[in-house]
Amino acid sequence: MEKISEFTVRRLSNYYRILLDLEKRGIPTVSSARLAELGGITSAQVRKDLSYFGNFGTRGLGYSVTELKNAIVEILGLNRQWTMALFGAGSLGHALFFHEGFREDGFYFKHVFDVDPKKVGTKWNDVDITHQRNAEEVLRRDPVHIAVVATPPEAATDIIELLVRAGTKGILNFAPTQLTVPDGVWLRNVNLAVALESLSFYLSM
Amino acid sequence: MEKISEFTVRRLSNYYRILLDLEKRGIPTVSSARLAELGGITSAQVRKDLSYFGNFGTRGLGYSVTELKNAIVEILGLNRQWTMALFGAGSLGHALFFHEGFREDGFYFKHVFDVDPKKVGTKWNDVDITHQRNAEEVLRRDPVHIAVVATPPEAATDIIELLVRAGTKGILNFAPTQLTVPDGVWLRNVNLAVALESLSFYLSM
Repeated sequence: MEKISEFTVRRLSNYYRILLDLEKRGIPTVSSARLAELGGITSAQVRKDLSYFGNFGTRGLGYSVTELKNAIVEILGLNRQWTMALFGAGSLGHALFFHEGFREDGFYFKHVFDVDPKKVGTKWNDVDITHQRNAEEVLRRDPVHIAVVATPPEAATDIIELLVRAGTKGILNFAPTQLTVPDGVWLRNVNLAVALESLSFYLSM
Repeated sequence: MEKISEFTVRRLSNYYRILLDLEKRGIPTVSSARLAELGGITSAQVRKDLSYFGNFGTRGLGYSVTELKNAIVEILGLNRQWTMALFGAGSLGHALFFHEGFREDGFYFKHVFDVDPKKVGTKWNDVDITHQRNAEEVLRRDPVHIAVVATPPEAATDIIELLVRAGTKGILNFAPTQLTVPDGVWLRNVNLAVALESLSFYLSM
């Protein structure tokens, strides 16, 4: 598989949501033009994105909604369970931990770490909140696929380092700071301001 | 200005962050190849994106970091103040309200609405939490540019309708539900699972 950009993967997530919605509404097939319209991009882009992964369409009939959805589920790795550890039991961490969409997609938290003595020792659902100083040991003994960092920015660098030492391969960072990781570790920075910047762009026009 | 896709605008946000970082590190110029490398996309894509907005580069010298950053600030509408109303004073709403990155970009909350009688009548910083039944009246009297919806999905449809009636033109929706708005209103749905799906894609390879 050739190198696929993060933007292509994002569009695949977008197609996945559109296809889920079409499937729920009982619509059996979709053209690249219609997918493009629903996704707000060109049909040439849709055909290019899907061409990376093989040949799903039939000329003149379009794509089978369910087949294409299932193919994207497999491509995105959503046909399996992904375990996660949360760093930071503040309000963002709380919102992420209890976000229903994650569990529906196969992502679930099995560890929560914080440094606040009022939070350490309590539970969210059946998950203990553990002191962050024990995180490396806990993650070596009971590893996760993905760590979610929802701490203040000044705490994030140390956490990334302990995650790399513990062998965690996927990191989703919400802390507003630029971080780097060694090869073989996948880091995604989520910037909550990006969607606002898209609105301000369109509202400025 | 021709129609610019949401993906182009997202990449501009991405360039903006990279340029901010280069500027902080005192780096005066950047080539499209280097911008592409830092942004994880092709240099052809970088040149294409920036070509929508005029001619910032000098052949052989690359782009002036500060000039290009300032041009993108203007394009994204970040050289002004944007007022916002928050719907939903739960943990996600709390995280968004207190998110420092928004205020730095010129986005600030002036209203918070919720339906919980324990929250209504209290304040976050100097902003009153008002009952959602009064939202339409409050927003007619004291409008905002952008409404941020951080409520459960079943509440979102009614909120979108009241926002459209109140004349709010920009809506950032975090509720995991598909919503539609009339022409002239800009809606962005933020799906927190999308970044996880990007990780699961790369971790599956």
